[in-house]
Amino acid sequence: MNPSWLNEIQWTEDGLVPVIAQQYDTGRILMFAWMNRESLALTVDEGYAVYWSRSRNRLWRKGEESGHRQKVVDIQLDCDADVILIKIAQEGGIACHTGRESCFYRSLKDGEWQTVDPVLKDPKTIYK
Amino acid sequence: MNPSWLNEIQWTEDGLVPVIAQQYDTGRILMFAWMNRESLALTVDEGYAVYWSRSRNRLWRKGEESGHRQKVVDIQLDCDADVILIKIAQEGGIACHTGRESCFYRSLKDGEWQTVDPVLKDPKTIYK
Repeated sequence: MNPSWLNEIQWTEDGLVPVIAQQYDTGRILMFAWMNRESLALTVDEGYAVYWSRSRNRLWRKGEESGHRQKVVDIQLDCDADVILIKIAQEGGIACHTGRESCFYRSLKDGEWQTVDPVLKDPKTIYK
Repeated sequence: MNPSWLNEIQWTEDGLVPVIAQQYDTGRILMFAWMNRESLALTVDEGYAVYWSRSRNRLWRKGEESGHRQKVVDIQLDCDADVILIKIAQEGGIACHTGRESCFYRSLKDGEWQTVDPVLKDPKTIYK
């Protein structure tokens, strides 16, 4: 697992790289997570986003429980080679564990974080 | 500098939060950087993005040298309250120090990172 494109990435001390997931057609930012070397290689091989869960300390195939997988359309690297942007097609139209389209559903207005996006599906029915 | 909206953010151990900058009208991701408490408060107060430069260990008013400031249109917070998304209007149309619109100008194609975006302005003429 040593292709040069993987070696070009500037991994953190923990062997991770931050990843921004963007819906490929609307441009909406859906979530932010981390990948390690293995999960990024698997993302390419499988064609669906595989993250590294820092809280669970294991590979996290996005959608493994919810079915809300992320089909990869494009993978981009930034100028410092230390951030990845993946353009994806979000299956089910829901990326967030709260049942919303995007994890970014709060906006700073009048000095407070106001929820500006609806819950599309009750999380209780997503995670059984 | 203790408004509750700042206290709601889950700062890293180093007192930072990752920030994604997105062009407000096209949806293009322009860059990824970090803010600390002071820089985020200044971003709100001044209406232009102020980051925390980890390499220079100081406040970084984006565009302070290049003139390519980022006017803030919206500030969003994710579900875990540990990532910020700012929607901005990029002055000069160039966010990247390479003279490109976006720092994400390389795409993984045929097993290599291929440059897919042009340099809009020679960096030598941006940074004097």
